[in-house]
Amino acid sequence: MTDEIAPIENFWAVVPAGGAGTRLWPLSRSTSPKFLRDLTGTGRSLLQGTYDRLAPLVDDRFMVVTGQAHRDAVADQLPEVDRDEIVAEPSARDSMAAIGLAAALLERRDPDAVMGSFAADHVITDPAAFGGSVRTAVAAARDGWLVTIGIEPTFPSSAFGYIHLGGDLGGHAGVHAVESFVEKPSVSVAEGYLATGRYRWNAGMFVVRPGVLLDLLAADDPAFAAALRAIAADPTTLEAAWPALPKVALDHAVAEPAAAAGRVVVVPAAFGWDDIGDFDSLAGLLEDADRAEVTVLGEAALVHAAQATGLVVPAGGKVVAVIGLDDVVVVDTPDALLVTTRARAQDVKAVVNALKDSGRGELT
Amino acid sequence: MTDEIAPIENFWAVVPAGGAGTRLWPLSRSTSPKFLRDLTGTGRSLLQGTYDRLAPLVDDRFMVVTGQAHRDAVADQLPEVDRDEIVAEPSARDSMAAIGLAAALLERRDPDAVMGSFAADHVITDPAAFGGSVRTAVAAARDGWLVTIGIEPTFPSSAFGYIHLGGDLGGHAGVHAVESFVEKPSVSVAEGYLATGRYRWNAGMFVVRPGVLLDLLAADDPAFAAALRAIAADPTTLEAAWPALPKVALDHAVAEPAAAAGRVVVVPAAFGWDDIGDFDSLAGLLEDADRAEVTVLGEAALVHAAQATGLVVPAGGKVVAVIGLDDVVVVDTPDALLVTTRARAQDVKAVVNALKDSGRGELT
Repeated sequence: MTDEIAPIENFWAVVPAGGAGTRLWPLSRSTSPKFLRDLTGTGRSLLQGTYDRLAPLVDDRFMVVTGQAHRDAVADQLPEVDRDEIVAEPSARDSMAAIGLAAALLERRDPDAVMGSFAADHVITDPAAFGGSVRTAVAAARDGWLVTIGIEPTFPSSAFGYIHLGGDLGGHAGVHAVESFVEKPSVSVAEGYLATGRYRWNAGMFVVRPGVLLDLLAADDPAFAAALRAIAADPTTLEAAWPALPKVALDHAVAEPAAAAGRVVVVPAAFGWDDIGDFDSLAGLLEDADRAEVTVLGEAALVHAAQATGLVVPAGGKVVAVIGLDDVVVVDTPDALLVTTRARAQDVKAVVNALKDSGRGELT
Repeated sequence: MTDEIAPIENFWAVVPAGGAGTRLWPLSRSTSPKFLRDLTGTGRSLLQGTYDRLAPLVDDRFMVVTGQAHRDAVADQLPEVDRDEIVAEPSARDSMAAIGLAAALLERRDPDAVMGSFAADHVITDPAAFGGSVRTAVAAARDGWLVTIGIEPTFPSSAFGYIHLGGDLGGHAGVHAVESFVEKPSVSVAEGYLATGRYRWNAGMFVVRPGVLLDLLAADDPAFAAALRAIAADPTTLEAAWPALPKVALDHAVAEPAAAAGRVVVVPAAFGWDDIGDFDSLAGLLEDADRAEVTVLGEAALVHAAQATGLVVPAGGKVVAVIGLDDVVVVDTPDALLVTTRARAQDVKAVVNALKDSGRGELT
């Protein structure tokens, strides 16, 4: 049983911390993105929650890859992490470059390393179950697999990609082959997926030996893999080499072709995962079971609600009165206010784009 | 035709400026009540609009009765009005005391005076028609009638009292006897009233000779009338005498008993009157005919709306985004935010009371 709480040998957490969380505007901004915010009312940001969840598994083997603009904020929020382990990307070049750079750095530092890549802005309500799934994934990764963790769907979401399970992997209990990765489906297609019981949400969690990841990348794009390894060999070249790297998601660059080649396996799991993709998702995460009242993220004493349900965020520090609206979303901040409904939460992105177009980009 | 724009001889406008406008919180506050606010986006407060409408009829015969706390603000907003004509009540004692005091003061100053009492916080969209109705009312008042102006109902409101019309008054075209004043009815009763064509809204507009008003009051409450006349005879007694005056509405103290005694007549009128009783009323007043978009009171550039209708007031000076809500009411101010619907606009009062009860009375 000690195994369950002990760090996993040679296991490195790699946390790409990027993305503006546009659909969570005005809470999330480009200057203060989602991962730096406490969206769960715990007093810890999503990044800190990610650290808290992974630290017991890795000791101090924790690496963050983030934008240069956020490096100081990340360091401030994670004083336990050595500043050298906070890698600053010169510019955002999508997840393959970010995670690939971490892989190239780790490949040189620890020949026995297994890395696990986990987004900085997701929430997991059962960290013990998460730790168990990671442990299973690391064991398979040591054998050379690219391992993903597939989340048991709780509803037919059209916002996530899915992983189609294949058969059991011999020698690793709780690990399946991956038939394929499938793009975000329509709700009706997703309903069909759920009915089969053979599909899991793709949460972008990958556990793999760094060299295996880079070799899989090299199979399709040898120059990309070589460029990452060259930067790792001489980090002073990072600034110069970075802009030439392809801007592509790890899923497309590696996971999908590797799955087609039979190199990917999946650990099906259920540990209360949420990517807090929008205010509907956030409201669902925070609401009480009975949903009889509004859910308040922040200082509840500021909110006066009557015959209302939904989510109220009084982040402007002032009184918010809400009367007679169901499933409403009210997010008050010092310089911007959003009023919408849970059903329209996805449309927040369009408002943010409109603000940019109208010359109010400083608010986004 | 010159008659139509000339001042009316010996006619005094008396404007009681009181009432917090609780249902218009957080725009209207006890410290900054409705009548001091520009609620129509014209750049003029409701009080100033009242002045603008009446000034052509009265020259400088314009008297305001207001609370001591608001006397300076009223004077600031109405630099054209002699400060001596801004009478400060030591405390709020309802409309009979306020208007009765004005009557007692005017009775001494001008034996030929006719006074017209008009609330400081109503809106009239056709001031020329209003002026015509006032002219008709003043002519009847000179003959000793208590004259009210009865507004043609545009819907079966349950928020107003009604005036039941009697027969034509001989000698004054456009003037009717008043059968009775009736209290705020239910909507279904109001529908019955409208079907008869014999009912008008009671907007609290009374035109009368000051002595007639006080004599009518004296018929039921001689001490009250005597007390008002004594204060007018020696205004230094105002502070001492005021707290003993009855707290009663002019409607109850004079208009209803006088109507029963056959002393009241009414000028039926239609000039786009609104008392802006709540945000539903305000939205109706401001909205475009097609109602396809939200109506903005204030700086329209601050509001980003998508598939939304209703009223948005960005009085906090910050960007307000509204998505996917119909007939919504969003009122943002620097220290309080209200989100509700037009249908629930009457319930704002309950929130204000709840704020007081919870120790946040400074916001109300």
